[in-house]
Amino acid sequence: MLGKKRFVRIKNPYLDSMDEDILYHLDLGTKTHNLPAMFGDVKFVCVGGSPNRMKAFALFMHKELGLEDSGEDMKDICAGTDRYCMYKAGPVLSISHGMGIPSISIMLHELIKLLHHARCCDVTIIRIGTSGGIGIMPGSVVITDTAVDSFFKPRFEQVILDKIVTRSTELDKELAEELFNCSKEIPDFPTLIGHTMCTYDFYEGQGRLDGALCSFSREKKLDYLKRAYKAGVRNIEMESTVFAAMCGLCGLKGKLFRNA
Amino acid sequence: MLGKKRFVRIKNPYLDSMDEDILYHLDLGTKTHNLPAMFGDVKFVCVGGSPNRMKAFALFMHKELGLEDSGEDMKDICAGTDRYCMYKAGPVLSISHGMGIPSISIMLHELIKLLHHARCCDVTIIRIGTSGGIGIMPGSVVITDTAVDSFFKPRFEQVILDKIVTRSTELDKELAEELFNCSKEIPDFPTLIGHTMCTYDFYEGQGRLDGALCSFSREKKLDYLKRAYKAGVRNIEMESTVFAAMCGLCGLKGKLFRNA
Repeated sequence: MLGKKRFVRIKNPYLDSMDEDILYHLDLGTKTHNLPAMFGDVKFVCVGGSPNRMKAFALFMHKELGLEDSGEDMKDICAGTDRYCMYKAGPVLSISHGMGIPSISIMLHELIKLLHHARCCDVTIIRIGTSGGIGIMPGSVVITDTAVDSFFKPRFEQVILDKIVTRSTELDKELAEELFNCSKEIPDFPTLIGHTMCTYDFYEGQGRLDGALCSFSREKKLDYLKRAYKAGVRNIEMESTVFAAMCGLCGLKGKLFRNA
Repeated sequence: MLGKKRFVRIKNPYLDSMDEDILYHLDLGTKTHNLPAMFGDVKFVCVGGSPNRMKAFALFMHKELGLEDSGEDMKDICAGTDRYCMYKAGPVLSISHGMGIPSISIMLHELIKLLHHARCCDVTIIRIGTSGGIGIMPGSVVITDTAVDSFFKPRFEQVILDKIVTRSTELDKELAEELFNCSKEIPDFPTLIGHTMCTYDFYEGQGRLDGALCSFSREKKLDYLKRAYKAGVRNIEMESTVFAAMCGLCGLKGKLFRNA
Protein backbone atom coordinates (compact mmCIF):
# COMPACT_ATOMS: atom_id res chain seq x y z
CA MET A 1 0.00 0.00 0.00
CA LEU A 2 3.13 2.16 -0.04
CA GLY A 3 2.39 5.61 -1.42
CA LYS A 4 -1.29 4.78 -1.92
CA LYS A 5 -3.54 7.13 -0.04
CA ARG A 6 -6.78 5.79 1.40
CA PHE A 7 -9.42 8.47 0.92
CA VAL A 8 -12.77 8.56 2.68
CA ARG A 9 -15.41 7.03 0.40
CA ILE A 10 -18.83 8.55 -0.06
CA LYS A 11 -21.41 6.11 -1.45
CA ASN A 12 -23.91 8.59 -2.77
CA PRO A 13 -24.09 9.36 -6.52
CA TYR A 14 -26.08 12.55 -5.86
CA LEU A 15 -23.58 14.27 -3.63
CA ASP A 16 -21.03 15.50 -6.17
CA SER A 17 -23.68 17.24 -8.26
CA MET A 18 -24.94 19.24 -5.28
CA ASP A 19 -24.18 22.92 -5.40
CA GLU A 20 -23.82 23.13 -1.64
CA ASP A 21 -23.67 20.52 1.10
CA ILE A 22 -24.96 21.67 4.47
CA LEU A 23 -23.96 19.49 7.41
CA TYR A 24 -27.03 20.53 9.38
CA HIS A 25 -26.31 18.89 12.72
CA LEU A 26 -22.67 20.05 12.79
CA ASP A 27 -23.49 23.63 11.74
CA LEU A 28 -20.91 23.44 8.94
CA GLY A 29 -21.22 23.61 5.16
CA THR A 30 -19.23 23.60 1.93
CA LYS A 31 -20.14 27.21 1.07
CA THR A 32 -19.92 28.72 4.54
CA HIS A 33 -16.67 27.01 5.62
CA ASN A 34 -13.33 26.19 4.00
CA LEU A 35 -13.42 22.55 5.00
CA PRO A 36 -10.06 21.48 3.44
CA ALA A 37 -8.31 24.32 5.31
CA MET A 38 -10.10 23.56 8.58
CA PHE A 39 -9.89 19.75 8.54
CA GLY A 40 -7.50 18.64 5.76
CA ASP A 41 -4.83 17.49 8.24
CA VAL A 42 -7.12 15.24 10.30
CA LYS A 43 -5.75 11.69 10.73
CA PHE A 44 -7.60 10.51 13.83
CA VAL A 45 -11.21 10.98 14.82
CA CYS A 46 -12.21 10.04 18.36
CA VAL A 47 -15.90 9.91 19.18
CA GLY A 48 -17.81 9.39 22.42
CA GLY A 49 -21.28 10.01 23.85
CA SER A 50 -20.74 12.87 26.29
CA PRO A 51 -19.83 16.41 25.15
CA ASN A 52 -17.94 17.19 28.37
CA ARG A 53 -15.81 14.06 28.08
CA MET A 54 -14.96 14.73 24.45
CA LYS A 55 -13.82 18.23 25.37
CA ALA A 56 -11.69 16.81 28.19
CA PHE A 57 -10.25 14.25 25.74
CA ALA A 58 -9.36 16.98 23.22
CA LEU A 59 -7.58 18.97 25.96
CA PHE A 60 -5.73 15.81 26.99
CA MET A 61 -4.64 15.16 23.38
CA HIS A 62 -3.59 18.77 23.00
CA LYS A 63 -1.28 18.38 25.99
CA GLU A 64 -0.03 14.92 24.98
CA LEU A 65 0.85 16.15 21.49
CA GLY A 66 2.77 19.10 22.98
CA LEU A 67 0.93 21.57 20.79
CA GLU A 68 2.22 25.11 21.16
CA ASP A 69 -0.69 27.26 22.24
CA SER A 70 -2.19 26.65 25.66
CA GLY A 71 -5.33 24.90 24.46
CA GLU A 72 -7.28 26.61 27.21
CA ASP A 73 -9.38 28.51 24.71
CA MET A 74 -10.20 25.36 22.76
CA LYS A 75 -13.38 26.19 20.88
CA ASP A 76 -16.36 23.99 20.12
CA ILE A 77 -16.34 23.94 16.30
CA CYS A 78 -20.06 23.06 16.36
CA ALA A 79 -20.96 25.82 18.85
CA GLY A 80 -23.74 27.04 16.55
CA THR A 81 -25.76 23.89 17.30
CA ASP A 82 -26.46 22.03 20.51
CA ARG A 83 -26.73 18.62 18.81
CA TYR A 84 -23.04 17.66 18.95
CA CYS A 85 -19.73 19.14 20.14
CA MET A 86 -16.47 19.04 18.15
CA TYR A 87 -12.91 19.93 19.16
CA LYS A 88 -9.63 19.72 17.24
CA ALA A 89 -6.16 19.11 18.65
CA GLY A 90 -3.70 19.02 15.74
CA PRO A 91 -4.54 15.97 13.60
CA VAL A 92 -7.02 14.65 16.19
CA LEU A 93 -10.72 15.49 15.96
CA SER A 94 -12.82 14.80 19.07
CA ILE A 95 -16.62 14.68 18.62
CA SER A 96 -19.59 13.82 20.84
CA HIS A 97 -22.42 11.75 19.39
CA GLY A 98 -25.10 11.49 22.09
CA MET A 99 -26.65 8.14 23.01
CA GLY A 100 -27.84 5.37 20.74
CA ILE A 101 -27.62 4.21 17.13
CA PRO A 102 -29.79 6.93 15.54
CA SER A 103 -27.89 9.73 17.28
CA ILE A 104 -24.40 8.50 16.31
CA SER A 105 -25.62 7.64 12.81
CA ILE A 106 -26.63 11.26 12.04
CA MET A 107 -23.22 12.44 13.26
CA LEU A 108 -21.35 9.79 11.22
CA HIS A 109 -23.16 10.67 7.98
CA GLU A 110 -22.12 14.29 8.39
CA LEU A 111 -18.62 13.50 9.68
CA ILE A 112 -17.91 11.19 6.71
CA LYS A 113 -19.07 13.89 4.29
CA LEU A 114 -16.93 16.43 6.17
CA LEU A 115 -13.80 14.25 5.82
CA HIS A 116 -14.62 13.71 2.14
CA HIS A 117 -15.07 17.43 1.42
CA ALA A 118 -11.88 18.19 3.36
CA ARG A 119 -10.05 15.58 1.23
CA CYS A 120 -8.71 13.77 4.28
CA CYS A 121 -6.84 10.50 3.74
CA ASP A 122 -5.71 7.56 5.88
CA VAL A 123 -8.12 8.45 8.66
CA THR A 124 -8.49 6.21 11.70
CA ILE A 125 -11.67 6.54 13.74
CA ILE A 126 -11.90 5.31 17.30
CA ARG A 127 -14.97 5.26 19.51
CA ILE A 128 -14.14 5.59 23.22
CA GLY A 129 -16.51 5.47 26.14
CA THR A 130 -17.98 3.56 29.04
CA SER A 131 -19.82 0.28 28.64
CA GLY A 132 -21.19 -2.53 30.75
CA GLY A 133 -18.70 -5.38 31.13
CA ILE A 134 -19.74 -9.05 31.05
CA GLY A 135 -17.65 -11.53 33.06
CA ILE A 136 -14.64 -9.23 33.15
CA MET A 137 -12.95 -7.19 35.88
CA PRO A 138 -14.56 -3.76 36.45
CA GLY A 139 -12.38 -1.07 34.87
CA SER A 140 -11.13 -3.38 32.12
CA VAL A 141 -10.72 -1.93 28.66
CA VAL A 142 -12.38 -3.89 25.86
CA ILE A 143 -11.03 -3.44 22.34
CA THR A 144 -13.81 -4.55 20.02
CA ASP A 145 -12.99 -6.99 17.22
CA THR A 146 -16.59 -7.35 16.06
CA ALA A 147 -19.78 -5.57 17.05
CA VAL A 148 -22.81 -7.82 17.45
CA ASP A 149 -26.53 -7.11 17.88
CA SER A 150 -28.90 -8.26 20.68
CA PHE A 151 -29.01 -11.71 19.06
CA PHE A 152 -25.18 -11.98 19.11
CA LYS A 153 -25.04 -11.67 15.31
CA PRO A 154 -22.27 -9.62 13.61
CA ARG A 155 -24.70 -7.48 11.64
CA PHE A 156 -26.40 -4.13 11.51
CA GLU A 157 -29.89 -4.02 10.09
CA GLN A 158 -30.29 -0.71 8.31
CA VAL A 159 -33.80 0.29 7.30
CA ILE A 160 -33.58 2.06 3.91
CA LEU A 161 -37.01 3.49 3.07
CA ASP A 162 -39.06 0.37 3.88
CA LYS A 163 -36.42 -2.25 3.05
CA ILE A 164 -34.14 -3.87 5.62
CA VAL A 165 -30.52 -4.16 4.47
CA THR A 166 -28.03 -6.18 6.53
CA ARG A 167 -24.53 -4.74 6.87
CA SER A 168 -21.32 -6.25 8.21
CA THR A 169 -19.97 -5.02 11.55
CA GLU A 170 -16.39 -6.27 11.44
CA LEU A 171 -13.69 -3.87 12.52
CA ASP A 172 -10.05 -3.49 11.57
CA LYS A 173 -8.14 -6.47 13.03
CA GLU A 174 -4.67 -4.89 12.66
CA LEU A 175 -5.75 -1.78 14.51
CA ALA A 176 -7.13 -3.94 17.33
CA GLU A 177 -3.78 -5.71 17.66
CA GLU A 178 -1.91 -2.42 17.53
CA LEU A 179 -4.03 -0.92 20.30
CA PHE A 180 -3.74 -4.11 22.34
CA ASN A 181 0.06 -3.97 22.06
CA CYS A 182 0.01 -0.34 23.24
CA SER A 183 -1.99 -1.36 26.29
CA LYS A 184 0.75 -3.81 27.32
CA GLU A 185 3.19 -0.93 27.71
CA ILE A 186 1.00 0.67 30.40
CA PRO A 187 1.19 -0.91 33.86
CA ASP A 188 -2.08 -1.97 35.55
CA PHE A 189 -4.15 -1.43 32.44
CA PRO A 190 -6.32 -4.55 32.10
CA THR A 191 -7.18 -4.81 28.42
CA LEU A 192 -8.71 -7.50 26.26
CA ILE A 193 -10.01 -8.01 22.75
CA GLY A 194 -13.60 -9.25 22.46
CA HIS A 195 -17.02 -8.80 20.90
CA THR A 196 -19.10 -5.79 21.87
CA MET A 197 -22.88 -6.11 21.94
CA CYS A 198 -24.94 -3.14 20.80
CA THR A 199 -28.54 -2.70 21.98
CA TYR A 200 -31.30 -0.22 21.14
CA ASP A 201 -32.28 0.12 24.78
CA PHE A 202 -30.43 0.62 28.06
CA TYR A 203 -32.97 -0.94 30.44
CA GLU A 204 -35.07 -3.74 28.93
CA GLY A 205 -32.53 -4.38 26.18
CA GLN A 206 -29.57 -4.85 28.52
CA GLY A 207 -31.31 -6.91 31.19
CA ARG A 208 -31.54 -4.17 33.83
CA LEU A 209 -33.93 -4.77 36.70
CA ASP A 210 -34.30 -1.08 37.60
CA GLY A 211 -36.10 0.51 34.65
CA ALA A 212 -39.68 1.80 34.60
CA LEU A 213 -40.55 -1.43 32.78
CA CYS A 214 -39.15 -4.87 33.57
CA SER A 215 -40.93 -8.05 32.47
CA PHE A 216 -38.18 -10.66 32.91
CA SER A 217 -36.91 -12.49 35.98
CA ARG A 218 -33.45 -12.24 37.48
CA GLU A 219 -32.83 -15.80 36.20
CA LYS A 220 -33.76 -14.92 32.59
CA LYS A 221 -31.45 -11.93 32.77
CA LEU A 222 -28.52 -14.01 34.01
CA ASP A 223 -29.21 -16.70 31.42
CA TYR A 224 -29.13 -14.05 28.67
CA LEU A 225 -25.86 -12.52 29.88
CA LYS A 226 -24.30 -16.00 30.16
CA ARG A 227 -25.30 -16.80 26.60
CA ALA A 228 -23.82 -13.46 25.50
CA TYR A 229 -20.52 -14.32 27.24
CA LYS A 230 -20.49 -17.74 25.59
CA ALA A 231 -20.95 -16.03 22.21
CA GLY A 232 -17.80 -13.98 22.87
CA VAL A 233 -19.44 -10.76 24.10
CA ARG A 234 -17.36 -8.94 26.72
CA ASN A 235 -19.21 -5.64 26.96
CA ILE A 236 -22.50 -3.94 26.04
CA GLU A 237 -23.17 -0.46 24.71
CA MET A 238 -25.51 1.29 22.28
CA GLU A 239 -23.63 2.48 19.17
CA SER A 240 -21.09 -0.09 17.99
CA THR A 241 -22.97 -1.89 15.19
CA VAL A 242 -23.82 1.19 13.14
CA PHE A 243 -20.35 2.62 13.82
CA ALA A 244 -18.69 -0.53 12.47
CA ALA A 245 -21.07 -0.77 9.50
CA MET A 246 -20.67 2.83 8.36
CA CYS A 247 -16.89 3.01 8.89
CA GLY A 248 -16.47 -0.24 6.96
CA LEU A 249 -18.51 1.00 4.00
CA CYS A 250 -16.78 4.39 3.83
CA GLY A 251 -13.14 3.31 4.12
CA LEU A 252 -12.46 4.56 7.62
CA LYS A 253 -10.19 2.33 9.69
CA GLY A 254 -12.53 1.86 12.60
CA LYS A 255 -12.18 0.63 16.12
CA LEU A 256 -14.08 0.58 19.37
CA PHE A 257 -12.23 0.98 22.56
CA ARG A 258 -14.42 0.84 25.61
CA ASN A 259 -13.93 1.06 29.30
CA ALA A 260 -16.14 -1.59 30.85
CA MET B 1 -63.46 9.58 36.68
CA LEU B 2 -64.48 12.37 39.09
CA GLY B 3 -62.23 12.36 42.11
CA LYS B 4 -60.18 9.45 40.82
CA LYS B 5 -56.52 10.28 40.52
CA ARG B 6 -54.51 8.75 37.70
CA PHE B 7 -51.09 7.90 39.08
CA VAL B 8 -48.03 7.12 36.99
CA ARG B 9 -47.69 3.34 36.69
CA ILE B 10 -44.38 1.58 37.02
CA LYS B 11 -44.37 -1.94 35.53
CA ASN B 12 -41.40 -3.36 37.35
CA PRO B 13 -41.92 -5.72 40.33
CA TYR B 14 -38.30 -5.18 41.49
CA LEU B 15 -38.48 -1.43 41.91
CA ASP B 16 -40.35 -1.12 45.20
CA SER B 17 -37.95 -3.44 47.01
CA MET B 18 -34.94 -1.37 46.03
CA ASP B 19 -33.27 0.52 48.84
CA GLU B 20 -32.31 3.39 46.57
CA ASP B 21 -33.19 4.28 43.01
CA ILE B 22 -30.55 6.27 41.16
CA LEU B 23 -31.74 8.00 38.01
CA TYR B 24 -28.25 7.89 36.49
CA HIS B 25 -28.79 9.94 33.36
CA LEU B 26 -30.75 12.68 35.17
CA ASP B 27 -28.29 12.93 38.07
CA LEU B 28 -31.14 12.50 40.58
CA GLY B 29 -31.93 9.80 43.13
CA THR B 30 -34.36 8.79 45.88
CA LYS B 31 -31.74 9.12 48.63
CA THR B 32 -29.97 12.23 47.40
CA HIS B 33 -33.07 14.25 46.50
CA ASN B 34 -36.53 14.85 47.98
CA LEU B 35 -38.35 13.98 44.79
CA PRO B 36 -41.94 14.54 46.11
CA ALA B 37 -40.97 18.04 47.31
CA MET B 38 -39.14 18.86 44.09
CA PHE B 39 -41.62 17.41 41.59
CA GLY B 40 -44.89 16.51 43.38
CA ASP B 41 -46.82 19.37 41.73
CA VAL B 42 -45.88 18.47 38.14
CA LYS B 43 -48.92 18.16 35.84
CA PHE B 44 -47.36 18.69 32.42
CA VAL B 45 -44.12 17.35 31.01
CA CYS B 46 -42.92 18.78 27.71
CA VAL B 47 -40.03 17.05 25.98
CA GLY B 48 -37.99 17.87 22.90
CA GLY B 49 -34.63 17.01 21.34
CA SER B 50 -32.58 20.15 21.81
CA PRO B 51 -31.42 21.37 25.27
CA ASN B 52 -31.41 25.04 24.20
CA ARG B 53 -34.95 24.85 22.89
CA MET B 54 -36.25 23.15 26.03
CA LYS B 55 -34.70 25.92 28.14
CA ALA B 56 -36.30 28.54 25.91
CA PHE B 57 -39.63 26.69 26.23
CA ALA B 58 -39.36 26.64 30.04
CA LEU B 59 -38.67 30.40 30.10
CA PHE B 60 -41.66 30.93 27.79
CA MET B 61 -43.91 28.85 30.09
CA HIS B 62 -42.60 30.72 33.13
CA LYS B 63 -43.67 34.00 31.53
CA GLU B 64 -47.00 32.66 30.22
CA LEU B 65 -47.91 31.32 33.66
CA GLY B 66 -47.10 34.69 35.24
CA LEU B 67 -44.89 33.09 37.87
CA GLU B 68 -43.59 35.56 40.41
CA ASP B 69 -39.79 35.41 40.30
CA SER B 70 -38.10 36.61 37.13
CA GLY B 71 -37.20 33.16 35.80
CA GLU B 72 -33.90 34.55 34.56
CA ASP B 73 -31.94 32.35 36.90
CA MET B 74 -33.82 29.22 35.80
CA LYS B 75 -31.52 26.36 36.70
CA ASP B 76 -30.87 23.12 34.82
CA ILE B 77 -32.03 20.50 37.35
CA CYS B 78 -29.80 17.93 35.62
CA ALA B 79 -26.73 20.21 35.57
CA GLY B 80 -24.62 17.43 37.12
CA THR B 81 -24.81 15.44 33.87
CA ASP B 82 -24.49 16.46 30.23
CA ARG B 83 -26.86 13.75 28.97
CA TYR B 84 -30.13 15.68 29.33
CA CYS B 85 -31.30 19.12 30.51
CA MET B 86 -34.37 19.69 32.72
CA TYR B 87 -36.15 22.91 33.72
CA LYS B 88 -39.27 23.49 35.82
CA ALA B 89 -41.78 26.33 35.48
CA GLY B 90 -44.50 25.80 38.07
CA PRO B 91 -46.37 22.60 37.18
CA VAL B 92 -44.57 22.32 33.83
CA LEU B 93 -41.41 20.26 33.46
CA SER B 94 -39.37 20.82 30.30
CA ILE B 95 -36.77 18.16 29.39
CA SER B 96 -34.45 17.53 26.45
CA HIS B 97 -34.03 13.98 25.14
CA GLY B 98 -31.43 14.10 22.38
CA MET B 99 -32.06 12.41 19.04
CA GLY B 100 -33.54 9.01 18.30
CA ILE B 101 -35.45 6.21 19.99
CA PRO B 102 -32.66 4.91 22.27
CA SER B 103 -31.86 8.39 23.58
CA ILE B 104 -35.47 9.33 24.41
CA SER B 105 -36.11 5.85 25.81
CA ILE B 106 -33.40 6.19 28.50
CA MET B 107 -34.85 9.56 29.50
CA LEU B 108 -38.43 8.25 29.59
CA HIS B 109 -37.51 5.28 31.83
CA GLU B 110 -35.97 7.67 34.34
CA LEU B 111 -38.65 10.35 33.98
CA ILE B 112 -41.45 7.82 34.58
CA LYS B 113 -39.66 6.56 37.70
CA LEU B 114 -39.14 10.17 38.80
CA LEU B 115 -42.88 10.96 38.48
CA HIS B 116 -43.68 7.72 40.34
CA HIS B 117 -41.29 8.46 43.20
CA ALA B 118 -42.62 12.04 43.39
CA ARG B 119 -46.20 10.64 43.57
CA CYS B 120 -47.36 12.79 40.69
CA CYS B 121 -50.88 12.23 39.35
CA ASP B 122 -52.88 13.18 36.24
CA VAL B 123 -49.74 13.98 34.31
CA THR B 124 -49.94 14.94 30.64
CA ILE B 125 -46.80 14.53 28.56
CA ILE B 126 -46.32 16.32 25.26
CA ARG B 127 -43.45 15.96 22.85
CA ILE B 128 -42.76 19.13 20.84
CA GLY B 129 -40.22 19.65 18.09
CA THR B 130 -39.44 19.94 14.41
CA SER B 131 -40.18 17.22 11.91
CA GLY B 132 -40.28 16.68 8.16
CA GLY B 133 -43.75 17.30 6.72
CA ILE B 134 -45.25 15.14 3.95
CA GLY B 135 -47.69 16.76 1.54
CA ILE B 136 -48.50 19.61 3.93
CA MET B 137 -47.72 23.32 4.00
CA PRO B 138 -44.26 24.12 5.48
CA GLY B 139 -44.69 25.46 9.01
CA SER B 140 -47.82 23.40 9.66
CA VAL B 141 -48.25 21.87 13.08
CA VAL B 142 -49.05 18.15 13.11
CA ILE B 143 -50.81 16.75 16.17
CA THR B 144 -50.13 13.02 16.15
CA ASP B 145 -53.03 10.62 16.60
CA THR B 146 -50.92 7.49 16.06
CA ALA B 147 -47.20 6.96 15.67
CA VAL B 148 -46.21 4.47 12.98
CA ASP B 149 -42.92 2.78 12.06
CA SER B 150 -41.04 2.79 8.71
CA PHE B 151 -43.52 0.22 7.41
CA PHE B 152 -46.50 2.47 8.32
CA LYS B 153 -47.55 0.09 11.12
CA PRO B 154 -48.84 1.45 14.47
CA ARG B 155 -46.35 -0.51 16.53
CA PHE B 156 -43.09 -0.26 18.40
CA GLU B 157 -40.86 -3.31 18.39
CA GLN B 158 -39.08 -3.41 21.73
CA VAL B 159 -36.17 -5.84 22.05
CA ILE B 160 -36.27 -7.31 25.58
CA LEU B 161 -33.13 -9.39 26.10
CA ASP B 162 -33.27 -11.34 22.83
CA LYS B 163 -37.04 -11.35 22.35
CA ILE B 164 -38.97 -8.88 20.22
CA VAL B 165 -42.15 -7.60 21.86
CA THR B 166 -44.60 -5.49 19.83
CA ARG B 167 -46.22 -2.56 21.63
CA SER B 168 -49.09 -0.29 20.64
CA THR B 169 -48.35 3.31 19.65
CA GLU B 170 -51.78 4.89 19.94
CA LEU B 171 -52.00 8.24 21.65
CA ASP B 172 -54.74 9.95 23.61
CA LYS B 173 -57.50 10.92 21.17
CA GLU B 174 -59.22 13.39 23.53
CA LEU B 175 -56.00 15.28 24.11
CA ALA B 176 -55.45 15.49 20.34
CA GLU B 177 -58.92 17.03 19.90
CA GLU B 178 -58.34 19.42 22.79
CA LEU B 179 -55.04 20.63 21.33
CA PHE B 180 -56.61 20.89 17.88
CA ASN B 181 -59.40 23.07 19.29
CA CYS B 182 -56.82 25.32 20.97
CA SER B 183 -55.07 25.78 17.63
CA LYS B 184 -58.29 27.14 16.09
CA GLU B 185 -58.23 30.07 18.51
CA ILE B 186 -54.86 31.24 17.15
CA PRO B 187 -54.94 33.08 13.80
CA ASP B 188 -52.67 31.81 10.99
CA PHE B 189 -51.73 28.65 12.84
CA PRO B 190 -52.10 25.83 10.28
CA THR B 191 -52.71 22.68 12.31
CA LEU B 192 -53.85 19.18 11.45
CA ILE B 193 -54.23 15.79 13.09
CA GLY B 194 -52.41 12.89 11.38
CA HIS B 195 -50.07 9.94 11.72
CA THR B 196 -46.41 10.55 12.50
CA MET B 197 -43.79 8.18 11.11
CA CYS B 198 -40.81 7.36 13.30
CA THR B 199 -37.54 6.16 11.76
CA TYR B 200 -34.24 4.92 13.19
CA ASP B 201 -32.25 6.95 10.70
CA PHE B 202 -32.33 10.51 9.40
CA TYR B 203 -30.70 9.97 6.00
CA GLU B 204 -31.31 6.52 4.46
CA GLY B 205 -34.38 5.94 6.63
CA GLN B 206 -36.15 9.14 5.61
CA GLY B 207 -35.33 9.06 1.90
CA ARG B 208 -32.75 11.85 1.95
CA LEU B 209 -30.50 12.11 -1.10
CA ASP B 210 -27.71 14.01 0.72
CA GLY B 211 -26.28 11.53 3.26
CA ALA B 212 -22.87 9.84 3.10
CA LEU B 213 -24.72 6.75 1.86
CA CYS B 214 -27.61 6.75 -0.60
CA SER B 215 -28.56 3.64 -2.59
CA PHE B 216 -32.05 4.54 -3.84
CA SER B 217 -33.21 6.67 -6.76
CA ARG B 218 -35.17 9.91 -6.56
CA GLU B 219 -38.16 7.96 -7.96
CA LYS B 220 -38.00 5.29 -5.25
CA LYS B 221 -37.84 8.02 -2.62
CA LEU B 222 -40.89 9.81 -4.02
CA ASP B 223 -42.79 6.52 -4.33
CA TYR B 224 -42.06 5.77 -0.64
CA LEU B 225 -43.17 9.20 0.55
CA LYS B 226 -46.35 8.94 -1.55
CA ARG B 227 -47.15 5.56 -0.02
CA ALA B 228 -46.54 7.06 3.44
CA TYR B 229 -48.95 9.90 2.68
CA LYS B 230 -51.57 7.42 1.44
CA ALA B 231 -51.18 5.52 4.74
CA GLY B 232 -52.07 8.72 6.63
CA VAL B 233 -48.54 9.86 7.52
CA ARG B 234 -48.21 13.66 7.63
CA ASN B 235 -44.75 14.03 9.16
CA ILE B 236 -41.56 12.09 9.96
CA GLU B 237 -39.34 12.21 13.03
CA MET B 238 -37.26 9.82 15.17
CA GLU B 239 -38.82 9.32 18.62
CA SER B 240 -42.62 9.01 18.42
CA THR B 241 -43.16 5.23 18.49
CA VAL B 242 -41.27 4.57 21.72
CA PHE B 243 -42.75 7.73 23.27
CA ALA B 244 -46.30 6.53 22.50
CA ALA B 245 -45.56 2.96 23.62
CA MET B 246 -44.00 3.88 26.96
CA CYS B 247 -46.53 6.61 27.84
CA GLY B 248 -49.37 4.23 27.04
CA LEU B 249 -47.98 1.48 29.25
CA CYS B 250 -47.25 3.78 32.18
CA GLY B 251 -50.52 5.75 32.33
CA LEU B 252 -49.23 9.07 31.04
CA LYS B 253 -51.66 10.94 28.83
CA GLY B 254 -49.35 11.35 25.85
CA LYS B 255 -49.33 13.45 22.78
CA LEU B 256 -47.00 14.48 20.00
CA PHE B 257 -47.18 17.97 18.70
CA ARG B 258 -44.77 18.66 15.88
CA ASN B 259 -43.90 21.60 13.72
CA ALA B 260 -43.43 20.25 10.18
